[in-house]
Amino acid sequence: MAMRRGTNLPRMGDFNQSVILEAIRRSVEGLSRIELVDATGLSAQTVTNITRRLLDEGLIAEAGRTINGPGKPRVTLRLVAESRFAVGVHLDPVVITVVLLDMSGAVRRRCAVRTGDKDPERIADVMARTVEAVIDDSAVDRDLVAGVGVAAPGPLDDEKGAVIDPPKLHGWRRVPLRDVMADSSGFEVMLEKDTVAAALGEQWTGRWAADRSFLFVYLGTGIGASLVRDAEAVRGSTRNFGEVGHIIVDPDGPACGCGGRGCVEVVCTPQAIVGRAERDGLFDDAVDPDDVQAVEQRLGELCTRAKAGEEGASNAIRVAAEHLALLIPVLTDLLDVDRVVLGGPYWERLRDFYLEMLPGLVHRRSATRALRSIPIDGTVVGEDVGAVGAACVVLDAVLTPRASDLLLED
Amino acid sequence: MAMRRGTNLPRMGDFNQSVILEAIRRSVEGLSRIELVDATGLSAQTVTNITRRLLDEGLIAEAGRTINGPGKPRVTLRLVAESRFAVGVHLDPVVITVVLLDMSGAVRRRCAVRTGDKDPERIADVMARTVEAVIDDSAVDRDLVAGVGVAAPGPLDDEKGAVIDPPKLHGWRRVPLRDVMADSSGFEVMLEKDTVAAALGEQWTGRWAADRSFLFVYLGTGIGASLVRDAEAVRGSTRNFGEVGHIIVDPDGPACGCGGRGCVEVVCTPQAIVGRAERDGLFDDAVDPDDVQAVEQRLGELCTRAKAGEEGASNAIRVAAEHLALLIPVLTDLLDVDRVVLGGPYWERLRDFYLEMLPGLVHRRSATRALRSIPIDGTVVGEDVGAVGAACVVLDAVLTPRASDLLLED
Repeated sequence: MAMRRGTNLPRMGDFNQSVILEAIRRSVEGLSRIELVDATGLSAQTVTNITRRLLDEGLIAEAGRTINGPGKPRVTLRLVAESRFAVGVHLDPVVITVVLLDMSGAVRRRCAVRTGDKDPERIADVMARTVEAVIDDSAVDRDLVAGVGVAAPGPLDDEKGAVIDPPKLHGWRRVPLRDVMADSSGFEVMLEKDTVAAALGEQWTGRWAADRSFLFVYLGTGIGASLVRDAEAVRGSTRNFGEVGHIIVDPDGPACGCGGRGCVEVVCTPQAIVGRAERDGLFDDAVDPDDVQAVEQRLGELCTRAKAGEEGASNAIRVAAEHLALLIPVLTDLLDVDRVVLGGPYWERLRDFYLEMLPGLVHRRSATRALRSIPIDGTVVGEDVGAVGAACVVLDAVLTPRASDLLLED
Repeated sequence: MAMRRGTNLPRMGDFNQSVILEAIRRSVEGLSRIELVDATGLSAQTVTNITRRLLDEGLIAEAGRTINGPGKPRVTLRLVAESRFAVGVHLDPVVITVVLLDMSGAVRRRCAVRTGDKDPERIADVMARTVEAVIDDSAVDRDLVAGVGVAAPGPLDDEKGAVIDPPKLHGWRRVPLRDVMADSSGFEVMLEKDTVAAALGEQWTGRWAADRSFLFVYLGTGIGASLVRDAEAVRGSTRNFGEVGHIIVDPDGPACGCGGRGCVEVVCTPQAIVGRAERDGLFDDAVDPDDVQAVEQRLGELCTRAKAGEEGASNAIRVAAEHLALLIPVLTDLLDVDRVVLGGPYWERLRDFYLEMLPGLVHRRSATRALRSIPIDGTVVGEDVGAVGAACVVLDAVLTPRASDLLLED
């Protein structure tokens, strides 16, 4: 219900606490109370009260005093990174990645398991056992683990915590992954779309904090888009924001299962790029497009050959970049963002080619090109951005109530 | 800068005042203080303090007492619709529409001027004179007019308050419309994209308040999209949210100036629909596609003939609906909204055809069709939605600080 309600004072306290924690977390050297007043706009009294509570809870600690001329020395407050942890799990058709993050957002442990298995129960079992192994291996106190975030391909049924029918996870139909993982791990579990989680992971680094918004383009087995605006990941009404698979980018492209032609799903995905290269005679045979591991390997080979200067391979990558350069302006023109960040499991291989080609191609098609040029960058989190983002969903829920939380709910 | 800051108590007061005003505005019969406590979640003391201020300022008035059993009678508080007014101007290539709204959002006066003229100075002059005429004619005290909202085709340069280069307004290049209108009218002027203004106009009716979000599809000389989420119009980073002209909806469609083929701009617009009908032999000759008035007339004729049962004309409209039915799922899949509302200058003619055909076509292509069906409706504001929305931009700025305003700015 969209009727706005009044603001809630106790929640405002939570909100201000999260603002202070975030300011401390983002400062490399820590901040004094005076600096916090400057940074947050809150009163000295509020800063004193909240920091006392955070000290009591062990979330922050005093870390040295600075004497700046006369007056009392300033006490620097730092985040205690080891005060809380979160686990992030990324369910990708090729690989399951599990990370353990501390409260600073740093990855403390990581484990990636490649599995050709598609059976939901066995996959969930692998996920749960990997979570256990990562926590055990880290020697972190389980009681300090705030929860498990799971990033999965969309669309999701948020209410049921279920994965509906991801195109590349055959046999997955309305799997209630949230409850399954909660039962097997014993932790509170939060389910998020992989693309949304990835954007949140990028947001947590603080690297793009100077922008009011950025579009994250996720290059995985599928292509997705997500959006961070005013420091919050946009989730949409059903937590399914960012389905872009059936946007047409190649009017001459192959037929798509949706009845259309040249959709992102049949043109921009790794299996589409590899399939086109195979049809162009760059490989002696064709791999099964559903064999995600074979496709991944072939895309890697294509990039290696392109880097080595093979013209056919370079052309294949150039065509892929041109198609992506048709998708990105569709998204930036609609969403009106300050920046584009690319990432996901396939980003690292394509990085150098795409960063060279995309900015010019995208700018020429931008509806606001007369006004500005939109910078295009690569992820700073790296290939684990889905798993890292999934853990950030948990850290986020624990530590940073959102501006929207200030409004009373029915 | 996206760094979040603390909440600001004085602004929270403004915010709570706006919440109370909105609750009173949306109630048809008015609300008592007790009902306001229920509706807003604010304390009785806060409601008493704020309503006293609103009474002093003349924005609300006491309107009768209700006795409900024992205890003090309840005083009903109603909005004083005549306490403030706003002017909305819609600059469309075919027609300039000016409306005067009172604080309830009701249209008090309306004037539409058709002009084939494209010269920016003369157009601005017509706009300013029509604003004067509408205010004079209404006999409203100029001091009660809070400002003038101008809805114009995008993209806009928000910083300079300028219209950059609307495709159908030849000769308009970076016209600083905001300052021009402010100088000629003497009012404060707010410039908004026509599509964003239209969504805001719909939002102000309260008709869609049960949804957390809706997509507004604007059918004008150009096609645009806009989004209301959590009761706020989404504007994007440069106030240019919703440019959809170069999304490909017909792989077999005609070439577009952008270098692509089958874009919304050359397939879904009135001139595209009329052009296709002309090529199909439904008319004896072809009108100049830049002659917006001739195109408008021909589209009207096409609809009339389709309504009369002429097969060729029906087919032409059906094809237009099918193309729009390719655009809408692209937008709803990306934005993840609860509802689609269609409107704009050309809506009324196409209404019956589109409302019959679109829901089924759109649902079949929706990425979340396994989860839900997204309702599709027509505007409740009508053909003046751009001008009404422009006036709502002013009412909105005056009366309803947003949740985001609760955060301190640097």
